[in-house]
Amino acid sequence: MQKLNVAILGATGAVGQRFIQLLDNHPWFAIAELVGKSSAGKRYGDVVNWILDDNPPTDILDIVVKPLDSELESLVVFSALPKEAAVDREPQLAAAGHIVCTNASAHRMADDVPLLLPEVNPEHIALIDVQRKNRGWATGALIANSNCTTMPIVMALAPLRQFNITKMLMVSEQAISGAGYPGVASLDIMDNIVPYVSGDENKMETETLKMLGTLQGDRIDYYESVTSATATRVPVIDGHLINLSIELAEKPSMEAILQAWESYDTLPEIAVLPSAPQRPVQYLPQINRPQPRRDRMAGKGMMTSIGRLRECPILGYKFAAMAHNTIRGAAGCSILNAEFLAVRGYLGTFRPQVAVSITS
Amino acid sequence: MQKLNVAILGATGAVGQRFIQLLDNHPWFAIAELVGKSSAGKRYGDVVNWILDDNPPTDILDIVVKPLDSELESLVVFSALPKEAAVDREPQLAAAGHIVCTNASAHRMADDVPLLLPEVNPEHIALIDVQRKNRGWATGALIANSNCTTMPIVMALAPLRQFNITKMLMVSEQAISGAGYPGVASLDIMDNIVPYVSGDENKMETETLKMLGTLQGDRIDYYESVTSATATRVPVIDGHLINLSIELAEKPSMEAILQAWESYDTLPEIAVLPSAPQRPVQYLPQINRPQPRRDRMAGKGMMTSIGRLRECPILGYKFAAMAHNTIRGAAGCSILNAEFLAVRGYLGTFRPQVAVSITS
Amino acid sequence: MQKLNVAILGATGAVGQRFIQLLDNHPWFAIAELVGKSSAGKRYGDVVNWILDDNPPTDILDIVVKPLDSELESLVVFSALPKEAAVDREPQLAAAGHIVCTNASAHRMADDVPLLLPEVNPEHIALIDVQRKNRGWATGALIANSNCTTMPIVMALAPLRQFNITKMLMVSEQAISGAGYPGVASLDIMDNIVPYVSGDENKMETETLKMLGTLQGDRIDYYESVTSATATRVPVIDGHLINLSIELAEKPSMEAILQAWESYDTLPEIAVLPSAPQRPVQYLPQINRPQPRRDRMAGKGMMTSIGRLRECPILGYKFAAMAHNTIRGAAGCSILNAEFLAVRGYLGTFRPQVAVSITS
Amino acid sequence: MQKLNVAILGATGAVGQRFIQLLDNHPWFAIAELVGKSSAGKRYGDVVNWILDDNPPTDILDIVVKPLDSELESLVVFSALPKEAAVDREPQLAAAGHIVCTNASAHRMADDVPLLLPEVNPEHIALIDVQRKNRGWATGALIANSNCTTMPIVMALAPLRQFNITKMLMVSEQAISGAGYPGVASLDIMDNIVPYVSGDENKMETETLKMLGTLQGDRIDYYESVTSATATRVPVIDGHLINLSIELAEKPSMEAILQAWESYDTLPEIAVLPSAPQRPVQYLPQINRPQPRRDRMAGKGMMTSIGRLRECPILGYKFAAMAHNTIRGAAGCSILNAEFLAVRGYLGTFRPQVAVSITS
Repeated sequence: MQKLNVAILGATGAVGQRFIQLLDNHPWFAIAELVGKSSAGKRYGDVVNWILDDNPPTDILDIVVKPLDSELESLVVFSALPKEAAVDREPQLAAAGHIVCTNASAHRMADDVPLLLPEVNPEHIALIDVQRKNRGWATGALIANSNCTTMPIVMALAPLRQFNITKMLMVSEQAISGAGYPGVASLDIMDNIVPYVSGDENKMETETLKMLGTLQGDRIDYYESVTSATATRVPVIDGHLINLSIELAEKPSMEAILQAWESYDTLPEIAVLPSAPQRPVQYLPQINRPQPRRDRMAGKGMMTSIGRLRECPILGYKFAAMAHNTIRGAAGCSILNAEFLAVRGYLGTFRPQVAVSITS
Repeated sequence: MQKLNVAILGATGAVGQRFIQLLDNHPWFAIAELVGKSSAGKRYGDVVNWILDDNPPTDILDIVVKPLDSELESLVVFSALPKEAAVDREPQLAAAGHIVCTNASAHRMADDVPLLLPEVNPEHIALIDVQRKNRGWATGALIANSNCTTMPIVMALAPLRQFNITKMLMVSEQAISGAGYPGVASLDIMDNIVPYVSGDENKMETETLKMLGTLQGDRIDYYESVTSATATRVPVIDGHLINLSIELAEKPSMEAILQAWESYDTLPEIAVLPSAPQRPVQYLPQINRPQPRRDRMAGKGMMTSIGRLRECPILGYKFAAMAHNTIRGAAGCSILNAEFLAVRGYLGTFRPQVAVSITS
Repeated sequence: MQKLNVAILGATGAVGQRFIQLLDNHPWFAIAELVGKSSAGKRYGDVVNWILDDNPPTDILDIVVKPLDSELESLVVFSALPKEAAVDREPQLAAAGHIVCTNASAHRMADDVPLLLPEVNPEHIALIDVQRKNRGWATGALIANSNCTTMPIVMALAPLRQFNITKMLMVSEQAISGAGYPGVASLDIMDNIVPYVSGDENKMETETLKMLGTLQGDRIDYYESVTSATATRVPVIDGHLINLSIELAEKPSMEAILQAWESYDTLPEIAVLPSAPQRPVQYLPQINRPQPRRDRMAGKGMMTSIGRLRECPILGYKFAAMAHNTIRGAAGCSILNAEFLAVRGYLGTFRPQVAVSITS
Repeated sequence: MQKLNVAILGATGAVGQRFIQLLDNHPWFAIAELVGKSSAGKRYGDVVNWILDDNPPTDILDIVVKPLDSELESLVVFSALPKEAAVDREPQLAAAGHIVCTNASAHRMADDVPLLLPEVNPEHIALIDVQRKNRGWATGALIANSNCTTMPIVMALAPLRQFNITKMLMVSEQAISGAGYPGVASLDIMDNIVPYVSGDENKMETETLKMLGTLQGDRIDYYESVTSATATRVPVIDGHLINLSIELAEKPSMEAILQAWESYDTLPEIAVLPSAPQRPVQYLPQINRPQPRRDRMAGKGMMTSIGRLRECPILGYKFAAMAHNTIRGAAGCSILNAEFLAVRGYLGTFRPQVAVSITS
């Protein structure tokens, strides 16, 4: 199988680096273009300050970074741009025919942009057809993934939609990598908690409802629930943990909830995607789990871990959810979204092998 | 003024050491006796593994540690015993005529034991007379202070009792020193969160209601409210932060709440106690405060810092509260309690000077 | 190929867990027996407090832990025993015919025990024959690996033996996992350095010379050099970094030293062992490397990273070396040693496939 | 006594904040002017992002920050400028008659600038007269303090000059606050060591020799010794620890060295300065001290702690030294220098009371 060339916008930043790391040796996609602002015109190996483990893959070091406004050759464009840069550039690229899978927040809440989490809302992919019609795009598309703290919340709540979630109170303890690089100054976070993360509370309260919503014709019916979020930063490198208290109108038993998580399965075509975890969520029975350091790499960083389900005297149910914020909560999710688009035939003539094998 | 001799039970442990540090150069109390189990019979300077900053005060190094079952000469006994050891020994000492100010949880919820926070429930001190009658104690008494996580919750909520707090949802992010020494293994908490602290959720849910309660005759009428607590441990050395969402039946404005905190004053006789902070609570207007490392030493570790008051779409009001868990939340609170007992005449013939000066 | 059954002594401890993790899906060895002291008689899954990432492999959870003095069926025994327990038990097992690959320090400096690092001193394996003769062991053997801080020192210095290393001054910055579990209390190490690690300075000064020594007849001629070590503990989870200043009698150029590291190759039969890294050492050209968090997993935790080679005005040469202390510096090294024993025919009739393929 | 007005250059940065904190309630000096670049023209309370504990002193919040090129009214100017800004501005201010006590590195190694550590080289103060003659300055002066890592090295070695220190090998483990704010990104240092600190190795090797040197006529005779430094960064907030191996030509006994530290006293006029610690150095007998977190606040952050004296097989003697890098190693040292200038009559007509009391 010929791999499909992809481009990465914002390739030298923290999320850009994670894209490169996760796409190294990817069975379907090959990194062909790197795009940046201050690094444009230079060899990637000369400008990148690699902050992830180990060193960058050697085969991309010689790629010369293209300016942000370059025409790109790759059909698929992964965007790790900051919001301000994403606002204009991402729709331009989609208009020019590219499939833009973005981690930026700029367009997440636009009515015709899917906020895609394949295991949760695969049908939202149909918004691509809506946006093409709305915006006159022929073959391009803009697909977003959620905020990194919203992500494990949605994954943990999706199996419980059947019980009618009427209230969601969420208190996050977020890792420093969620702020990018250089991001959080060590003098601000060592031996400390910062009880506020700019912008995240609003995203947790709104993105969640869009993602859990259902497609009605050409729009998303938001999930109806009252949401209240508190976002805090703690001295953890990777892995966002969220403490949730929820109200379920159906008042299921604890066993029914555990059962909902344990039996939560995704579409067969999603389960076999290269970046998909074996199962989207796991419930950990130990009383002191999930823990970011010990559980963030479950499913190669793509699985959401849940624990501590118990009664909440106020809202009914309490538990904790945790996922790797820069893998599942960012770059990994964009890549999984692109894989899902591939098997659904949105990536032009590209037909990945795995899709063939499962339909046979 | 002649200082009053005091004894410290569990003197080599983490809280015992904090008692020693805070009582060094105390204007009223002088450390005369140190009591321990495994260290009994040995010179304190030879057995203590001092874990606080700096070194132990030099003038207590030569004290020989007494066994746990020793008769003690000091009227006031500060207890940093583990729960198991406290169950029997503390009432024995009270029966023998000692004023036992304890940080142990063993007797906190007993009907006739005051769970004393002088700025919040000074009238609970009257339970001393009840317990003397109940238990046939002539001059002894047993006074407890709360769990270190409960403490800032109660201090932040006390000024809001006037608005009728009908629901309290609390999510803590607790420091490692709350677990004593050696306590939390570094391999468990570095770059990690442990989303469970054994026993603390129950204490936060129950102690809070006792402490906010009112004295009715010879018993405490618990405050009526629904409580729900989640306790987590984070890599912070000192300072417990709690994220609260509360329901207030009176639906006050945000300004009214801020006003309640800012005007919250304690009895004049309490404000002048040697260990009392200038004001019991402070509201920090910065959006990212309180922070454990930056705010835990406010009021020499005795002040509670509050911040981030805002609307909670579910319960009405959200904010964060934080206090130093081993000073205000443990040893410092016991000492303040003893100071309050002094000015109320419960420490035999001991009459501290400050009490005189303020009544004149 | 039929896998060879192995036993693990001290299976519930930190190093014991690392043995289990690294042996999971090992191509040659299969965990058959787990041995412990306090956990004896119980199901491993019921007694282990798993402190590594994720969860223990599911297929060993049902193994019932055997007492320390059990007769064992497995030919190969990996020992993660504490020194005191190892002193007697390890030679007993070797006498009973077992091949004991130990991480304990008890017998490291015994004249007839190889302190084996396959890339560095493969010929030391001949001490097995010496010990069998000395001790009257027929088929058993006792093979040790070094202290976890000594390991990267030896690996970095071995390629420089040709230049005659006359002085070695070493200052370590060691990770907390080197102290086992619960090991270092978080209250001792967060926001702190402990400038002393009990026993390690002596081990760094003596084990290094034995390991770099040469086999002369039936004994090791220690490498002749003056050694001086300082051992400190820092708030890092895994990865020991050592700052070295050395004197080289041959006064090679910096290029010659870099060349020595870059060309340092191991025997072909070692390079293909399942746990062997592609190359034993790598030199990192960045001025601020090696770093524990970013470089410890190089070569799946089995590679030693070196950096910052420069002139030392006092001793001539300075550089830093770093390796993963519980993988390459402990369990991983024991496993590599056993693999090396296999291809050399010391594991009874067991003949691994890889050895065949490389000799053909 | 009328306090002397002082100005602070670089008042919003990390060291500038420390100046403000240490000068709050200073018995001799009063903060009158704050100077900055990007914050010029604004109220200090509106622009400062206070990163130290607690909040800035309330009485300086309303001061309007002056531009860097302002004429200043205060005789004494404390400079926390970055090197680039200090190069030109500091001599300009001295030329204009100000006494500039600087923490910047720009002029430290100039022949006629004293690198002053009052307990160590008080006679270097005479360079002020030299620089006035050289540069035609009437009443102004430029006095520097050393790099924050050099400082504890010099303080620990000064008492040993009598033994003729012929070699000094130093390996530092430095706190993050040494890099200012935002300084070290948390993603670079959590669970990590960075084995390189830009510029510091050279400063440790050269500043040390100037500071330990002796005044000969109008110049400093550098101390003669071979120096070799390694500088590393570790996850510690405040407090630089240095591991030293030294050669002493006189080969004193260990007791003689301990005695040298214990008897090391400063001039009586220095010992009584407001910021002077009771004794400049303390030797800690515990085998695992000094530790940054536990010992950095000794002497209110102005004392240097030493420990672990023992034999070095290579150079003769080994030990560790530690001091608070932003108090004694930066702002606190500048303030102590200014106090020393005051009692020596360099601050115009200002005559502090303490100087009077000790000469009487």
